[in-house]
Amino acid sequence: MSEQITLYSAKICPFAHRVELALAEAKVGHTRFEVDLKDKPEWYAPKVNPASKVPAIAFGGPQVPPDQPSPESTKIAESLVLVEFVADLHPESTILPKDPVLRAKARFFIDVVSTKFLPAYMGPVARGQSFEPFWDALQTLQDLLPADKKFAISDEYTAADIAITPFLARMEVWLKNDIGAYKEGEGKKAAEYFFEGQRFARLVKYYEDIKARESFKATFDADYIKEKYTLRFTPMRAQVQAAAVAAAA
Amino acid sequence: MSEQITLYSAKICPFAHRVELALAEAKVGHTRFEVDLKDKPEWYAPKVNPASKVPAIAFGGPQVPPDQPSPESTKIAESLVLVEFVADLHPESTILPKDPVLRAKARFFIDVVSTKFLPAYMGPVARGQSFEPFWDALQTLQDLLPADKKFAISDEYTAADIAITPFLARMEVWLKNDIGAYKEGEGKKAAEYFFEGQRFARLVKYYEDIKARESFKATFDADYIKEKYTLRFTPMRAQVQAAAVAAAA
Repeated sequence: MSEQITLYSAKICPFAHRVELALAEAKVGHTRFEVDLKDKPEWYAPKVNPASKVPAIAFGGPQVPPDQPSPESTKIAESLVLVEFVADLHPESTILPKDPVLRAKARFFIDVVSTKFLPAYMGPVARGQSFEPFWDALQTLQDLLPADKKFAISDEYTAADIAITPFLARMEVWLKNDIGAYKEGEGKKAAEYFFEGQRFARLVKYYEDIKARESFKATFDADYIKEKYTLRFTPMRAQVQAAAVAAAA
Repeated sequence: MSEQITLYSAKICPFAHRVELALAEAKVGHTRFEVDLKDKPEWYAPKVNPASKVPAIAFGGPQVPPDQPSPESTKIAESLVLVEFVADLHPESTILPKDPVLRAKARFFIDVVSTKFLPAYMGPVARGQSFEPFWDALQTLQDLLPADKKFAISDEYTAADIAITPFLARMEVWLKNDIGAYKEGEGKKAAEYFFEGQRFARLVKYYEDIKARESFKATFDADYIKEKYTLRFTPMRAQVQAAAVAAAA
């Protein structure tokens, strides 16, 4: 397989980050195009992804500049579809194990990320809601981690780990920098609870092992996320906290 | 691979039906246990699926009666995980194509079923809501069907088709028999609109091709679904329509 791959991505987007991790793990050469999500190029939806979201991949076809996508390439969207696509293109990578049972375990873990973790993830940071459902969701994930293996289903870093990595990384940034719609100071308190407490020791160790990987270092820029999240969530805090004051009055 | 497979299923459940279709397509011998969803055996959650849902598979381990699951078998849950599991166990089946691009197309179709179709599916039948979002969701699916191929991504019946089949089959039952929380007569009108009209001609042809398959005939019992759905949705109609009258008064 040596068809060209053009990845349409955005550094801020956790879903796009999944695909960057998969490409880095499989060491796949590709052309990367950064889509400005606040000012998308007018050709993006009609020529790459009708849903107008990242990530998307243009696969095959002629070598063209990424801002002039060819109608001859196949366009593929949705982060989890793309992670499996990279795994299928590169079965020699460890993204998906060979054993059907381990593959099923990886996909079950991913299903929990999608259906249990993600619905709880934005509560505190974007809506200033209680941390409890968020901790419960992290607990559910932690309970799935094997005690005697490094990663979610084995000692290999697989699609299961790729699915959750971008969210743990962004969570560290917003917690430790107290960025979010919650009250000032609650993020730092929550960061201490998560990173220093006993409850999430297994999950924190898991996250440390993730951060040690080259694929993570090559695809995550904490300073950039901190800057963008500050711009995005600071107005939300003002709004949510003002609404809370108004409701109490 | 000749490990034993025990499927915990329920004839009424569309998600379990997906796995029955996959096993039938791959011609996999297995033990089937019907779980009474209204009166689940007390051993089911602790010994098979902590989420207490069907479908689930017990894979491998000793041959034991299904109501005495062995701790030595691997328990796997979630319908889409199980369909891919069957495909991984039987790569010679057509459930997932070999070509990574076609596999990605199948998974994208499944994602649309999960995120666009399913949220709209229960509106009319269970809540007596307008058919419009339901037709829109069916339209979205129909728009993905290739004009020149029999099934969702090719002329083969794949995981993409398996994901939607149980819902189309149940829809035919509740529409044609006017079973649902909507007003009496609306189901039959909607059945005519869907099955006889021009708008969904491609989707109806697709569904006819699905129904012609042996795997469908072997796994779907329309009379059973009709009986169970009548019991389930008739009280909902009384409730929803009474609430509508009360709200209008």
